[in-house]
Amino acid sequence: MALIVHKYGGTSVGSAERIKNVARRVAKWRRAGHQLVVVVSAMSGETNRLIDLAKEVQPSPDPRELDVVASTGEQVTIGLLAMALKNIGLDARSYTGAQVRVLTDSAFTKARILSIDEEHIRADLAAGRVVVVAGFQGEDEQGNITTLGRGGSDTSAVALAAALKADECLIYTDVDGVYTTDPRIVPEARRLRTVTFEEMLEMASLGSKVLQIRSVEFAGKYKVPLRVLSSLTDADQPLAQEAASGTLITFEEDTKMEQAAISGIAFTRDEAKITLTRVPDRPGIAYQILGPIADANVDVDMIIQNTSNDGTTDFSFTVHRSEFARAMDVLNGKVKAHIGAGNVVGDAHICKVSVVGIGMRSHVGIASLMFRTLSEEGINIQMISTSEIKISCIVEDKYMELAVRALHKAFGLEQPVLAH
Amino acid sequence: MALIVHKYGGTSVGSAERIKNVARRVAKWRRAGHQLVVVVSAMSGETNRLIDLAKEVQPSPDPRELDVVASTGEQVTIGLLAMALKNIGLDARSYTGAQVRVLTDSAFTKARILSIDEEHIRADLAAGRVVVVAGFQGEDEQGNITTLGRGGSDTSAVALAAALKADECLIYTDVDGVYTTDPRIVPEARRLRTVTFEEMLEMASLGSKVLQIRSVEFAGKYKVPLRVLSSLTDADQPLAQEAASGTLITFEEDTKMEQAAISGIAFTRDEAKITLTRVPDRPGIAYQILGPIADANVDVDMIIQNTSNDGTTDFSFTVHRSEFARAMDVLNGKVKAHIGAGNVVGDAHICKVSVVGIGMRSHVGIASLMFRTLSEEGINIQMISTSEIKISCIVEDKYMELAVRALHKAFGLEQPVLAH
Repeated sequence: MALIVHKYGGTSVGSAERIKNVARRVAKWRRAGHQLVVVVSAMSGETNRLIDLAKEVQPSPDPRELDVVASTGEQVTIGLLAMALKNIGLDARSYTGAQVRVLTDSAFTKARILSIDEEHIRADLAAGRVVVVAGFQGEDEQGNITTLGRGGSDTSAVALAAALKADECLIYTDVDGVYTTDPRIVPEARRLRTVTFEEMLEMASLGSKVLQIRSVEFAGKYKVPLRVLSSLTDADQPLAQEAASGTLITFEEDTKMEQAAISGIAFTRDEAKITLTRVPDRPGIAYQILGPIADANVDVDMIIQNTSNDGTTDFSFTVHRSEFARAMDVLNGKVKAHIGAGNVVGDAHICKVSVVGIGMRSHVGIASLMFRTLSEEGINIQMISTSEIKISCIVEDKYMELAVRALHKAFGLEQPVLAH
Repeated sequence: MALIVHKYGGTSVGSAERIKNVARRVAKWRRAGHQLVVVVSAMSGETNRLIDLAKEVQPSPDPRELDVVASTGEQVTIGLLAMALKNIGLDARSYTGAQVRVLTDSAFTKARILSIDEEHIRADLAAGRVVVVAGFQGEDEQGNITTLGRGGSDTSAVALAAALKADECLIYTDVDGVYTTDPRIVPEARRLRTVTFEEMLEMASLGSKVLQIRSVEFAGKYKVPLRVLSSLTDADQPLAQEAASGTLITFEEDTKMEQAAISGIAFTRDEAKITLTRVPDRPGIAYQILGPIADANVDVDMIIQNTSNDGTTDFSFTVHRSEFARAMDVLNGKVKAHIGAGNVVGDAHICKVSVVGIGMRSHVGIASLMFRTLSEEGINIQMISTSEIKISCIVEDKYMELAVRALHKAFGLEQPVLAH
């Protein structure tokens, strides 16, 4: 008997019929003797509907109140799934984030989980109940409702699995695993049977939408065995077959005997580039620019500073596209005048393309192959950043698909790899 | 400066535009220097949508889980209204029932309020904030979400007004006050400028849908001055005019100098009649019939027992129509055989028509005028019950409108009354 956490996203619970299907799948696991905790998202479309409603009332919705509204999406799903489970004879009980209690900080709309009180859940599991928990949400020390931001249900699931020391956390989704890249762009993309946490972290943060990045961080930190698998298979398929499907995210990289140079190509259009021109080149200037940006709660990704000869520098960085306008406001508002920069130039027509692979550590020539491939396609590289297991390039966004296809081919990712 | 509780129903908050209108109305009161607590219902149609969704998943939804789902309707509204208030420059904060905390018993879907912790609200009011509270909901001792049943938002508002010792509780609704009867049935129906709690209690319990009965009980018990008024007027009408509109529900009956014999005609189609025939006429028989009914959580309204000469009796009573099937099941299931009754006969084609008036106490001939009027219209009376301030008759439901019109005329209710 194992303690298993399941997580079902919005598409998997998108209608009464689909919720009943989820109940059948959960029942299969429960009746095999496992203890089950099920984390669910809002029904597909619901969170957007609620946010649109909020914007109708207040164009920039108050974050505390937006969380009050948005958190209802998951609350509806937990009640419905608990009903569906009871309807097929299982005992079940639902909990909101606040009821669990999932304690978070007070950063409304993008709160972080601080702790989870698993007492109620353990008592219910001991009593033979399936426990259904609302993903995406929690409450802060003052009892305010908080949400974890888009995709936060994955984080809820992994955090619960960590708190409960679950044997495995299964993320059911509308894809059947993690691919070398998005098959909609590269039809030859291959599903990876395993991927390491570090690779997954880079893939997720770079725009492979399979898992939310924080959930992968959590899973890595607490060593939660995590599996991404399809919720579109027959709910009644044999349990053993289902348990071995999808992609397992491992934390033992050396189990991979034959390591490919790279595991995948990630990409994202979710960023925008900002350049301050003719910034005086003096100590502390980066802080004077990025301090106010951080104060406005805007995350900065890549940063580049090019010194020229005239004592000024061009300072460029990228931010999430949804925070682009805010970042521009901050810079135009006080930063530019304060530091005496020339201009603030924003560019939302960019994308980021990255090669990711833990094998990069033991292979040489990855960067040069990447740059050569892009160059051969006539794609100009605007910014470059590297880490131990990835290389990212910012290019004009119209080249994104072309770049991804060319790189996927250049690195031979369509070929099956031993032990993958 | 007064402490005022406003309550807005589903129609008043039925769209983003209407929520903005409510915000303007609330702002008018707040800016006149009053402290404001605003209780809101779910947007119109939302509670039904949620219940329908639940029934798709589980035909008889689990009550605990149904409350988890249904309570989201109000939660959406509080967030939206707080946003709308902030959007026009007022400070505001929303609370769910659990957050307040509105403590209830654990009778899911029809819980009763046990206590209200007004600490947070007082702190917010002192800080100049408008406090927005979700009606219809609370939580029990174990932290389960509960709802108060249909119309429970009125009860929430009055309970909050009582806990906060508010100066007045204004129930904004889609009618402009309490009428002598439903103007859709009797166009000559008059709005009452005042009505006593006792009369209102009878009117509400008998189907005048203006206020939920428990809210009136609460208001009477805690002497909360309660006013029913229209939310359809111009939000910017002068405050003094608005504050004097609608119907004030008073607890000082002797302020009415010229008391009409009766204040109104109430009616309801929400009941059904059940008769057990040939019940052995022995002590304890009523308890043996109604005990199991009460155990099944079914409320009984009117009860009549007619003894005949052969040692048996016909035992009739009425229940709410939504509980009719359950009551029939209980009687057919075990009661009938256990007590040795003849038959269980159910009749859902009935209605109850009542004349209500505190003036009844000092006027004679009310009952006979009622019976004569019905008789003159050829309407057979099936059951009669009386209290100090009302007389109710059960008649076949096809006669309901006719009975109401005839009684309204017979008691001269279309005539304006001094001091009303």
